[in-house]
Amino acid sequence: MNAVDLKEKFSLFNECWKPKIVGELNGQYVKLAKLKGEFVWHHHENEDELFMVIKGQLIIKLKDQDIKLNEGQFFIIPRGVEHLPVAEKECHVMLFEPKSVRNTGNTQNEKTIETLEKI
Amino acid sequence: MNAVDLKEKFSLFNECWKPKIVGELNGQYVKLAKLKGEFVWHHHENEDELFMVIKGQLIIKLKDQDIKLNEGQFFIIPRGVEHLPVAEKECHVMLFEPKSVRNTGNTQNEKTIETLEKI
Repeated sequence: MNAVDLKEKFSLFNECWKPKIVGELNGQYVKLAKLKGEFVWHHHENEDELFMVIKGQLIIKLKDQDIKLNEGQFFIIPRGVEHLPVAEKECHVMLFEPKSVRNTGNTQNEKTIETLEKI
Repeated sequence: MNAVDLKEKFSLFNECWKPKIVGELNGQYVKLAKLKGEFVWHHHENEDELFMVIKGQLIIKLKDQDIKLNEGQFFIIPRGVEHLPVAEKECHVMLFEPKSVRNTGNTQNEKTIETLEKI
């Protein structure tokens, strides 16, 4: 059993919008992702989702407000809430969410990833 | 709905070994705690537990190894595994675990906290 070092894990991949699984507990995954640009509007029907910024800045657009996240800040998107993650520059985030979450939620498109890599 | 800033939350309390709830999702809590000294050996029968170090250093003693955690590192203690958190100097940690977790697990003593504060 080993500690997980976030910086070391982030050094293992470069592609954006492809979350990597770095931990599993109680039916949830801990994931790391690099984000740059705009994702797609979506929601998760049955899952709440936590975004925590490890490096850089992320804006989570909701229908009625923008949530700005800097390093050391997190936001929980309740299930059912439409959201659009936007990163002007590349940012690094940690995610906590149930194993059942699909990255594009209720939508299916070229950004959808069905099987996530464990690193 | 607001972002949660870890530093701001840590500034709101000083006592050690009293985790504060700062988020809730999917039946899990996100908690922050300041730790200093040695806790008590315990395990959680049905819950895995994630410790992530935000500031300082934490050692999680297991029966057969010590897990050293620095800033930006986390460790998941599987359910049923005996552990003893030890912090030589004060350290700040984020915890992610089911709402049902009791801080002292299978033990009950002066460090047990039945009701956690939300901040």
